[in-house]
Amino acid sequence: MINSFHPPVRTLMGPGPSDVNPRILEALSRPTIGHLDPAFIEMMDETKVLLQYAFQTSNKLTLPISAPGSAGMETVFVNLLEPGDKVIVCQNGVFGGRMQENVERCGAIAIMVEDEWGTTVDVNKVEQALKDNPDTKALAFVHAETSTGVRSDVETLCALARKFDCLSIVDAVTSLGGIELRVDDWGIDAIYSGTQKCLSCVPGLSPVSFSERAAEVIRDRNSKVQSWFLDLNLVMGYWGSEAKRSYHHTAPVNSLYALHESLIILKEEGLENAWLRHELNYRAFAAGIESIGLSFVVDAEYRLPQLNAVSFPDSVDDATVRSALLNNYSLEIGAGLGTLAGRVWRIGLMGYASNKKNVLFCLSALANVLSSTGLQVDASKAVAAAEAIYSV
Amino acid sequence: MINSFHPPVRTLMGPGPSDVNPRILEALSRPTIGHLDPAFIEMMDETKVLLQYAFQTSNKLTLPISAPGSAGMETVFVNLLEPGDKVIVCQNGVFGGRMQENVERCGAIAIMVEDEWGTTVDVNKVEQALKDNPDTKALAFVHAETSTGVRSDVETLCALARKFDCLSIVDAVTSLGGIELRVDDWGIDAIYSGTQKCLSCVPGLSPVSFSERAAEVIRDRNSKVQSWFLDLNLVMGYWGSEAKRSYHHTAPVNSLYALHESLIILKEEGLENAWLRHELNYRAFAAGIESIGLSFVVDAEYRLPQLNAVSFPDSVDDATVRSALLNNYSLEIGAGLGTLAGRVWRIGLMGYASNKKNVLFCLSALANVLSSTGLQVDASKAVAAAEAIYSV
Repeated sequence: MINSFHPPVRTLMGPGPSDVNPRILEALSRPTIGHLDPAFIEMMDETKVLLQYAFQTSNKLTLPISAPGSAGMETVFVNLLEPGDKVIVCQNGVFGGRMQENVERCGAIAIMVEDEWGTTVDVNKVEQALKDNPDTKALAFVHAETSTGVRSDVETLCALARKFDCLSIVDAVTSLGGIELRVDDWGIDAIYSGTQKCLSCVPGLSPVSFSERAAEVIRDRNSKVQSWFLDLNLVMGYWGSEAKRSYHHTAPVNSLYALHESLIILKEEGLENAWLRHELNYRAFAAGIESIGLSFVVDAEYRLPQLNAVSFPDSVDDATVRSALLNNYSLEIGAGLGTLAGRVWRIGLMGYASNKKNVLFCLSALANVLSSTGLQVDASKAVAAAEAIYSV
Repeated sequence: MINSFHPPVRTLMGPGPSDVNPRILEALSRPTIGHLDPAFIEMMDETKVLLQYAFQTSNKLTLPISAPGSAGMETVFVNLLEPGDKVIVCQNGVFGGRMQENVERCGAIAIMVEDEWGTTVDVNKVEQALKDNPDTKALAFVHAETSTGVRSDVETLCALARKFDCLSIVDAVTSLGGIELRVDDWGIDAIYSGTQKCLSCVPGLSPVSFSERAAEVIRDRNSKVQSWFLDLNLVMGYWGSEAKRSYHHTAPVNSLYALHESLIILKEEGLENAWLRHELNYRAFAAGIESIGLSFVVDAEYRLPQLNAVSFPDSVDDATVRSALLNNYSLEIGAGLGTLAGRVWRIGLMGYASNKKNVLFCLSALANVLSSTGLQVDASKAVAAAEAIYSV
């Protein structure tokens, strides 16, 4: 006998999904209407305008893909690449590797520029790779590496791409809404994100945006896009600016209500204020973490305020601590991925979840759990260190 | 200034999305939890069991794809096909054409068997095509053609596929939950559906199922699946039966709550009862439609009870009538597609929307609108004809 599912109420401080704002959950459950309903088309147009704000762009080709961030990544690669194209891919974590998979499955060639997990993309190595490969079509990298908590220097990398007459492709799944991101000012050609990170919306959609230069590449392809579902030349018949929208696929209507609401919430707060809030809560959290002798994997300069890779003493058992947090505090934090598995926790302070209550709760819960495993840590010290930052 | 979106409350009697059961909207808005949360994994396992019931299969490889029906279609083709493979595709409406697009974008060869829109797939022509092409890998066709309202003889077509040692690929987007469908008994090898038709769930997911024979083809591929996002060899690390699930992409958590609830509702009613309900409401609707002199495009034998292609006199302006229904009755019916555009309406009686109230409301509203355009039709006559069916 299978019964209706009533999920436990969690505090989501892993790598995403993050806590969803109740306003967004309410919007999600509004009555479904048709994907060609005039009222819905109007909402789609508003969503594009709101996404342009979030991305800081005037790109016409700005829309949400009807599937999660990984499908957004695939949308970018399958639309921009043709067999034989050369792409320089920066890898310093899981998602650079996923980019490589995408490039190669398009029949294109990935030239990898690798940096150690936990460090930022080395701009000099990228420049050298661009020099060595003058026929490169695109430079691809991750803005906010969700697997390590590292930020890349998007502005410099995009300038390099322009200098060598390449398209720039940016993974902004974990950065959009959490840290500074300026698509037009930085000259980003193609970008994709997710809804379940710093937008604090439900997972399942992937906002994307393409510069006019990138849009031209898509329009002027020699071969068909290998994915029918993600072919932007077709998708634009539905999401484009024509008064009459033609059916391509059935849009995820209710999820789009939720995205619309999440973007309104971002606009109400103001993008810069959201960035400052993420920064402040990170600083308080970091003060607490360091006060109990834990440390960060990433150098302060390249740290993401919304995703903190925290390392712990060898004596601590990763899974025991995460289970205790989940079972005794209903608090989710993330495990390490890849080379960092079993060695770090990934603690998110994303979107709606980036707030003082969560910072203090997480520090207190984590310190108490560590203390119960025999480590000499003091929860009150951690909380006081965080409070000190807020009271400045 | 962009405000929160409050959709009008519609009655959805087009080709989908159909009216969503309020229980499902409520489930949708439950608190988001992590896609690797043990509670969520348990719900995923239940969802697979419920989908096996809906599909009438014991296929282990049964799961929902994290994107709409079109992505389900693409999942089937990209996983089963490799470049150079030959597929016989039956086309008697829009979706056979979409199958062809998918086949060709995999670098495979589509051999088209075409029938007129509004007629069923000609089994004899399919058999001839199979004889003429002994090296065919798969036979693909649509069970319930959403563009025309036609049913195919799945059982016979699948038996033919077996006879000629082919895989059978079935589009069940509009059939699942609405008409008889038996994956195991009929020997279907690969099938995909949608959530927003006869399951009356929100759009955005695509349930799929593969026979052991098809699963083997996927495991034994020579080349990588061209889509990373839809590669079932990877997706199964997350949706498979291993105790430890590994992250592939972030699942659309809340949409999956909704699917889970919609399948529970289907189970509560019983699959056969749901089929009977669709049949009864169709018969009442048809009696009403015919009583006012309108007719069906499709022969009675091949008609879908859940999707009715109704033709109308030349004097009637398609768009005027649909607009009047939307604006004065908040009732959505569908326009014709492709060769049937401007010549038919597609009136859905799907899932939760297949009920007596909707039948009577739609007949009455349609007759009144037609009457206001000068046609001699009598709403009370249509309603009485429908009522007569219910009172038998």
